[in-house]
Amino acid sequence: MNIRMIFNTLGRISIAEAILLLLPLLVCFIYGEATWFGFAVTAAIALVLGLLLCLCFRTKNSVIYAKEGFAIVGIVWVIMSLIGALPFTINKEIPNYIDALFETVSGFTTTGASILTDVEAMSHGGLFWRSFTHWIGGMGVLVFITAISPGASDRSSHILKAEMPGPIFGKLVPRLRDTAKILYLIYIVLTLLEIVLLKVFGMNWFESFVHSFGTAGTGGFGVKANSIGAYNPACQWIIAVFMLIFGVNFNLYYLVLIRRIKPALKSSELKVYLLIVAASTAIISVNVFSTLAATGGTVEETVRHSFFQVSSIMTTTGYSTTDFNLWPGLSKAIILTLMFIGGCAGSTAGGIKVSRVVILVKMIGKEFRRMLHPRSVASVKFEGKRLDETTTNNVGVYLAVYLACMVTAFLLISFEPFGFESNFTATVACFNNVGPGLAEVGPMGSYADYTGFSKLVLSFSMLLGRLEIFPLLLAISPSTWRR
Amino acid sequence: MNIRMIFNTLGRISIAEAILLLLPLLVCFIYGEATWFGFAVTAAIALVLGLLLCLCFRTKNSVIYAKEGFAIVGIVWVIMSLIGALPFTINKEIPNYIDALFETVSGFTTTGASILTDVEAMSHGGLFWRSFTHWIGGMGVLVFITAISPGASDRSSHILKAEMPGPIFGKLVPRLRDTAKILYLIYIVLTLLEIVLLKVFGMNWFESFVHSFGTAGTGGFGVKANSIGAYNPACQWIIAVFMLIFGVNFNLYYLVLIRRIKPALKSSELKVYLLIVAASTAIISVNVFSTLAATGGTVEETVRHSFFQVSSIMTTTGYSTTDFNLWPGLSKAIILTLMFIGGCAGSTAGGIKVSRVVILVKMIGKEFRRMLHPRSVASVKFEGKRLDETTTNNVGVYLAVYLACMVTAFLLISFEPFGFESNFTATVACFNNVGPGLAEVGPMGSYADYTGFSKLVLSFSMLLGRLEIFPLLLAISPSTWRR
Repeated sequence: MNIRMIFNTLGRISIAEAILLLLPLLVCFIYGEATWFGFAVTAAIALVLGLLLCLCFRTKNSVIYAKEGFAIVGIVWVIMSLIGALPFTINKEIPNYIDALFETVSGFTTTGASILTDVEAMSHGGLFWRSFTHWIGGMGVLVFITAISPGASDRSSHILKAEMPGPIFGKLVPRLRDTAKILYLIYIVLTLLEIVLLKVFGMNWFESFVHSFGTAGTGGFGVKANSIGAYNPACQWIIAVFMLIFGVNFNLYYLVLIRRIKPALKSSELKVYLLIVAASTAIISVNVFSTLAATGGTVEETVRHSFFQVSSIMTTTGYSTTDFNLWPGLSKAIILTLMFIGGCAGSTAGGIKVSRVVILVKMIGKEFRRMLHPRSVASVKFEGKRLDETTTNNVGVYLAVYLACMVTAFLLISFEPFGFESNFTATVACFNNVGPGLAEVGPMGSYADYTGFSKLVLSFSMLLGRLEIFPLLLAISPSTWRR
Repeated sequence: MNIRMIFNTLGRISIAEAILLLLPLLVCFIYGEATWFGFAVTAAIALVLGLLLCLCFRTKNSVIYAKEGFAIVGIVWVIMSLIGALPFTINKEIPNYIDALFETVSGFTTTGASILTDVEAMSHGGLFWRSFTHWIGGMGVLVFITAISPGASDRSSHILKAEMPGPIFGKLVPRLRDTAKILYLIYIVLTLLEIVLLKVFGMNWFESFVHSFGTAGTGGFGVKANSIGAYNPACQWIIAVFMLIFGVNFNLYYLVLIRRIKPALKSSELKVYLLIVAASTAIISVNVFSTLAATGGTVEETVRHSFFQVSSIMTTTGYSTTDFNLWPGLSKAIILTLMFIGGCAGSTAGGIKVSRVVILVKMIGKEFRRMLHPRSVASVKFEGKRLDETTTNNVGVYLAVYLACMVTAFLLISFEPFGFESNFTATVACFNNVGPGLAEVGPMGSYADYTGFSKLVLSFSMLLGRLEIFPLLLAISPSTWRR
C-alpha cells in the first residue's frame, strides 16, 4: 500500500473542502446570519488538517493500483462527511453530531434523506451547505480533484473508476484529466441553465441555487416543508425535466457536444430509461386519477405529479410535489420498484442503474436461448458491443453483493418500532440514494425518530450505494492494509 | 419438438394421478363421507384422458432434448393441478374453481398457502388429498414416474434436472431410474418414521398421515385452525426436527446409507444450513423472550416456538405453532429473510436454496480478492470442487430472473387493497413456496380475500418457484414450439 499517497490525497481533499466551505460562509454574510461561525471554524480546521497532511506525507511516488484507488475513494468520502457535518453541530442547528453526520452523508451521497423535522427553521447558510453537498457529491469530489490537479496522472483512472457509477467505465478522451474537465463543464453548464430557468419562472435566487444543486446531484434536499409542492407548476415541470436530464449518462452529452448526435440517440440505456419513465408515468397517472378522483385534482395536476414523482424517484433525487405515500398500492409499488432500478450509469443518479438492469435482462435472455438451443454460442450484446464474460459475471456479482448489503442493513435496523413498510423502504431509499421512502419515512415524514445506531447503519448504506459497495468494503477490510 | 412424446408423457401422468386419487377416495369410504363422489369422478376423467392420450400418441422415439424436458415438466405440473383441483369443486368444498386451483397448486408446489377460512369444516377426504398433493409434489411427480417406468431411458435426465431444485444436478448411481428409486425410498422411509412417531406421541392416525405428508413435502397444509399449535409440545418438536430433515439434500442421506458418513457431514451446504437455523433460532428466542416477556411464556416455550418457526420457514414448509405475525420487528425481518434463502438443493424445500446463497457469497469473495490482487487467478470452490464459469454465471442469472419474476408478480397483485406488507410478503411466500406471509396473509390469516386474478398470479408464482422458473417459462414460450 502506498500509504503516503493516500494521506497526501486526504490532505488535498481536506484543503478542497475548506475552500468549498467558503461558499456557505459567504451566504451567511449576505443574509447577516450568525451561523457563519460554524463554517469559518470548520474551514479553518479542514485547512490546517489538510496542510499538515500534505506537508507530512509528501511523496513523489504517485503510482496507484486498483485496491489503493478503491480504498482512497472509500476513506475520502467518510472523512469529507465527518468534516462536513461539523458546521451543523457547531452552529447548534443540528446539535447531535450523529444527526449532523447522517444529514451530511445524505447530502454528499445525493440521497436527500433528512432528520430535520422543521427545515424552514434552518439558516440560509446551513440550507445552502446542505444542498451544495449534493452538488459536490453528484459528480464526485475526486473527479473534481482530477479535473483541477495539474499532476493527475492517468494512473489515477482507478480512482475515477471507483467513484463513477455503472458497470462500464468509459474515458471520453485519451487524457483522464480532460475527461474529468469535460464532465464537470457539462455539469456546470446544465446546472447554470436550471438556475436561470427557475429564477425566470418565479423562484428567488437562493431557491434557484439550492434546488438546482439538489437536482443536478439528484439529491433532493429542499428548503420548504412540502418540498417542491410549495412552488408553481412551471417550476415543478422544470425540475422534473432537469432531474430526468441529470439521470442520463453524461457521456451522451459529450457525444452531442461533438455533434455525434445519432450515436447518442441510439443508446439502448437511454431508450430503456425513457421508456420506463413514460410507462410508469402513464400507469401511475391512470391509477391515481381513477382511484383518487375526488382528491386527485385535474388531469394536468395528476400527470404533473405522476411525472414529477417518477422522474424524482427513478433518478433517485427524492423531491416531491405530492405525498405519494397516500397513493394507491399499485402506484406505490411502481415507485418502490423504480427506487431499485435508478438512473443511467455515468449519471449522478443512484440505484442498480438502468444499464445493469438491461444487461441482467439480456443475460436472462441468453440463458433462455441457450436452453432452447444448447449448441448455439450466444453472447450478450450491449450498446452494439459484445460484452465479455467478466463484465456480465461482474454484473451478476454486483447484484448479489448489493442484495446482501441491503438485507444486512435491513436486519440491523429492523429492531426499530416503525413496522416493516417503514424499515424496509428506509433501507431501500437510503441504499439507492433516493431519500424518502414510504410510511414513517415518506415524503412528508423524516428519519428523525430512528435511533443513533440506525442512523449510522443508514449513513453507511448511503455511502455503500453511492460508491457502489466495493470501495467502502475494501477501505474497511484489514486485508487491504496488509503489506 | 417431439410433440408425440410430450402428449404421451402427459397421458402417463394423467393415469398416475387417477391412481393417486384412489387414496383420498379410500379415506372418504373409511370415514363414510359423501365427498367420495368428486374423487371418483375426477379419477375417471383422469383415467380416460390418460388412456386416450397414451393410445393416440404412441411413439417409439423417446429421445428428449433439454428444451423438451423443460417444457414437459412445465406442462405436466399445470395439467396435474388443473385435474387435482376438480374434486374440491365437484364436492362443493371449494365451490369456486379458481380457489380450488390455487389450493391445489399450493399443494403440489408444497407452498401451503390456503384460501380456506375454516379448514376444520373440510371432509377427511378433502384434507387428505390436500396434504397428499404436498407429498407428491415434494419429491416431484416426474421423478416418481421415472422411478416406476421400466422404459425410462437415461435420456430423460433432462426431465429430472428440470424438476429437481438446485444449481447442480447429481446422479447418485449410473442408472437414472435407480437414482429416482433410491430418492423415493429414502423419502418413503423418512415419511413412515414420522407417521409412527407422531402417532406414538399423541396424534391420531389421520393427523399423523396428513402432517407427515405436509412435513415431508415441506408443504404446510394442516387440519386445524391454529396449525400445529393445536398439538402437544412433543409433536411440535418432532415436526420441527423432521421439517429440518426434509430440508437437507437427499444425496447426503444416500451417502449415509452407503456408509460414507464423513463426506456427508463435510457438506458445506449442510453446515451453512444448520448454522443459519441455529443462529436465527438463538436471535429470535432472545428477541421474542425479551420483548414479549409478559405474553411469551416460559423459556422452553419461547425456544420451541422460535425453533419451530425457523425450521418451518427456512424449509419453506409454513406450519406454525404461534402467530409470528405478532413477533417484534427484528424476528419478523429474520423470518422474511429465511423465506428467500430456503432449504438445501436436492431437498423438497423451496427458496433460492442454501447452496446458491453459498455460491453467491463465494462469488462476492472472489470478486473482492480479484480487486485486491488483480493478477491472481481466483476461482469459486464449492463442496471441494472448483466450479466452472458457466455454473457460477448461471447462479447469477438465476438470481436475476428470480428477482425479475418476483417483482413482476408483486406489481401485478399490488392493486389489492391490503397494503404493502401483505402484498409483498404474499408474493415472497408464494414464490418461495413458504405459504404464510405477514399481516393479512400471516399464519392466522388466509389468501381468501385476494381477487381471482391475484390468485392466478400467485398460483403461477408458486409454480415458477417450485420448478425454478425456466421450465415454466420455456413451456409457455412460443419459440419452444416452433419447428
